[in-house]
Amino acid sequence: MERAIDLNADLGEGYGAWRMGDDDAMFALVTSANVACGFHAGDPLTMARSARLAVEHGVALGAHPGYRDRAGFGRRELAVTPEEAAAEVVYQLGALAAVARTAGTAVRYVKAHGALYHRLDADRAAAVAVLEALAAFDPAIVVLGPPAGGLERAAGETGIRYAREAFIDRGYLADGRLVPRTHPGALVHDPSAAVDRALELVETGGVAAHDGSRVELEPDSLCLHGDTPGAVGLARAVRAALDAAGHELRPFA
Amino acid sequence: MERAIDLNADLGEGYGAWRMGDDDAMFALVTSANVACGFHAGDPLTMARSARLAVEHGVALGAHPGYRDRAGFGRRELAVTPEEAAAEVVYQLGALAAVARTAGTAVRYVKAHGALYHRLDADRAAAVAVLEALAAFDPAIVVLGPPAGGLERAAGETGIRYAREAFIDRGYLADGRLVPRTHPGALVHDPSAAVDRALELVETGGVAAHDGSRVELEPDSLCLHGDTPGAVGLARAVRAALDAAGHELRPFA
Amino acid sequence: MERAIDLNADLGEGYGAWRMGDDDAMFALVTSANVACGFHAGDPLTMARSARLAVEHGVALGAHPGYRDRAGFGRRELAVTPEEAAAEVVYQLGALAAVARTAGTAVRYVKAHGALYHRLDADRAAAVAVLEALAAFDPAIVVLGPPAGGLERAAGETGIRYAREAFIDRGYLADGRLVPRTHPGALVHDPSAAVDRALELVETGGVAAHDGSRVELEPDSLCLHGDTPGAVGLARAVRAALDAAGHELRPFA
Amino acid sequence: MERAIDLNADLGEGYGAWRMGDDDAMFALVTSANVACGFHAGDPLTMARSARLAVEHGVALGAHPGYRDRAGFGRRELAVTPEEAAAEVVYQLGALAAVARTAGTAVRYVKAHGALYHRLDADRAAAVAVLEALAAFDPAIVVLGPPAGGLERAAGETGIRYAREAFIDRGYLADGRLVPRTHPGALVHDPSAAVDRALELVETGGVAAHDGSRVELEPDSLCLHGDTPGAVGLARAVRAALDAAGHELRPFA
Repeated sequence: MERAIDLNADLGEGYGAWRMGDDDAMFALVTSANVACGFHAGDPLTMARSARLAVEHGVALGAHPGYRDRAGFGRRELAVTPEEAAAEVVYQLGALAAVARTAGTAVRYVKAHGALYHRLDADRAAAVAVLEALAAFDPAIVVLGPPAGGLERAAGETGIRYAREAFIDRGYLADGRLVPRTHPGALVHDPSAAVDRALELVETGGVAAHDGSRVELEPDSLCLHGDTPGAVGLARAVRAALDAAGHELRPFA
Repeated sequence: MERAIDLNADLGEGYGAWRMGDDDAMFALVTSANVACGFHAGDPLTMARSARLAVEHGVALGAHPGYRDRAGFGRRELAVTPEEAAAEVVYQLGALAAVARTAGTAVRYVKAHGALYHRLDADRAAAVAVLEALAAFDPAIVVLGPPAGGLERAAGETGIRYAREAFIDRGYLADGRLVPRTHPGALVHDPSAAVDRALELVETGGVAAHDGSRVELEPDSLCLHGDTPGAVGLARAVRAALDAAGHELRPFA
Repeated sequence: MERAIDLNADLGEGYGAWRMGDDDAMFALVTSANVACGFHAGDPLTMARSARLAVEHGVALGAHPGYRDRAGFGRRELAVTPEEAAAEVVYQLGALAAVARTAGTAVRYVKAHGALYHRLDADRAAAVAVLEALAAFDPAIVVLGPPAGGLERAAGETGIRYAREAFIDRGYLADGRLVPRTHPGALVHDPSAAVDRALELVETGGVAAHDGSRVELEPDSLCLHGDTPGAVGLARAVRAALDAAGHELRPFA
Repeated sequence: MERAIDLNADLGEGYGAWRMGDDDAMFALVTSANVACGFHAGDPLTMARSARLAVEHGVALGAHPGYRDRAGFGRRELAVTPEEAAAEVVYQLGALAAVARTAGTAVRYVKAHGALYHRLDADRAAAVAVLEALAAFDPAIVVLGPPAGGLERAAGETGIRYAREAFIDRGYLADGRLVPRTHPGALVHDPSAAVDRALELVETGGVAAHDGSRVELEPDSLCLHGDTPGAVGLARAVRAALDAAGHELRPFA
């Protein structure tokens, strides 16, 4: 039973003279690219380059806004108010939208980065402020995020389209949250196991949770990591396995 | 003979906890606001506040992009390539456009800030790169800048609408350039003289140059400074004098 | 019964073209200046100017390190690790020490800023990491902070000299902590009440707490705010009252 | 005839989550490390790590200050005043000195980075301002820079110790300046040729210039690049060749 699925990765995360991951290889493998917008990573030239790569490879372009904390790569919780978080997300989205337009494409979705990703799933006031600002900018925007948490609920309440992503190399708790990185089972280190999980998620919508139970995630997209050693090889293997099984790889948005 | 004229000022130049000038007073006096976009000054919350003030006072909102040099307030020449300058201007314009849209308004024009303002008038390659990028973002955008220099010529060649501004408190050379700040006669210190120059510029299109000759500037807008001592008082006096003479104050864009 | 007391304020908090507070006036009124070191505020030129003002007025120079969050002025909690917090404090202290040396003076103490100030009083691991790094840089350094909390305990355990400050315009709880800003009684708005509290703190070591009980703070220094409206006037009034009562104003360090 | 020579490289040029070059490998190969100080690259944790690596490998630690232009990696000319350049260099030097002290070592020399390196050799006012500030911080500091140019002259006049470096993979003009990167012959691409040039420079003090004449550089140190592909391999080859020829590798400072 063939399905359609999206593969997304965080790309365009260089900054000035610094590089992160292999954007040239990854843009050829994903169907959606979450592109950093200059706050936690990225800069105007890097964003322009990502937009051109998205056009060249037929990849859907997504904005990947983060906290304004370049020194911490947006991975550290930062106590910004909901109002400021909303203004910062709109700023980043608009900046990428303009750069994309000059490259002949458009931003199709938004996925928050790092600590902001987790904040929006856990802090309802921040989620609602950000979602309402996104809708004011573009009512057709899609938000990509974790399954079945606070962000998805808030999106439902504010009438924003929502797409779910699942991680193929992270362990899940029975309630659909990720096994914390400090716990055993947080990471799936074996590439072939990750490929198997990708197939299982696409074909059944679920995967074995950490406690042996089954968790239904119903993902619209599978998230690949772009910046870890072996990332490109794992992305190739996942893509090949999905191709071989007859699944269609296409942008969710 | 009543004329229509625009009054513009650089506003929204605070940053985080820091303030510059009296935005509340100035938004009530100008007809166009050049709003900093987060590179040399400004930040998402400050930009959102400026967009709301523009709506409230019926002020035309302009993007005021600068070099990515917050420590130098965009006043220091920085050797960025034309390609990077173009990407940076588009980034800033898009960011403000998005913030403006969430406030129910739009960006109507672009005026470069500080060292970038002068660079674009003097460096044809940079001007063309920036103008072509602006046109790719929005073919209807208007560029506000100095009269009769390299930027106006480049705008003409690339088919971009151009508007001229004149300074009422700066001396002009016979060729239409400003008297350099290091020279005597660079600044008009007497407020009543500045008001007189404003009236003369509006009514005749020209003003006495530094050498006593007459220079024709044909301005679409008069630039007021928002951040100097006495700025609000001078702006009030100019506005009152133009009103009293029956001139219509309205946005150029 | 005359006492010796120190008056400290956060100064040198401009950044580039932006100013905050009236440093020229405040350096003439305090005996200790907590000077921002370039992370939450301040920059090399501003620091050099502060060092010269300290020399000119015989003011003790203190380092005022904060989180690396200029956009938030160091007021927002930021989840840096204790190890990184320690490296960041040493970096800032060293930078000011070098700038001070070229101005012919030295840094005599360290007072953390904003969210880091509160973090160090509440997070023992962060406090110990920072204090041990400070001691490795200069075993004679003095830390200025709140009375009787976690930072003072950690300083005692690590053998670092500690000095206590009290706020004359903030309400205190019975346990010596500040009334939170969101509660009534957090701020003493009446300048003459603040002056009275200053005298009471110097002469008795304590002050009336929010619940009417008496709290013993035994301050080595009184903290004046440098950046609020009326700051200079209040500082002058406090100084005049302490002078009139015969108390000696001198640096604690 | 055995000589003593130093090998230096720009190291510690990561920033936050970003890496540049292979510091672990390079610290084992050089005798002097020019460590970025947080303005164009580097941050407190990266600096602390570099200081520990310097101690571990017996490498002399040098400060490598640059323009405050992280987005441009300090490679773009930025029109800061001499006074501000001096304050910025002292700030960076002091920050690294403090981090070094907590790691049990000290900064032995200063080498400017990128556009500032070239500015100081070409702009006498900036060179004098920076050198006088360095001397005020530490009269025993050594400045490492290009041979026989404006910086060396200014150091001689201000009484600052100066050491010369030569590049083994860059072509030289007959007057001792580098062949500009835009000209043929700017780069020595063949590693074995670079090794030969290293030996020739150590043994004779000079090397063939671009026009076939001989240029005397009399270097105290040879500069290796740490961040280019093949950098580690070339550094190993140079070190092996110098060892094999009996030359002593030791810090110049």
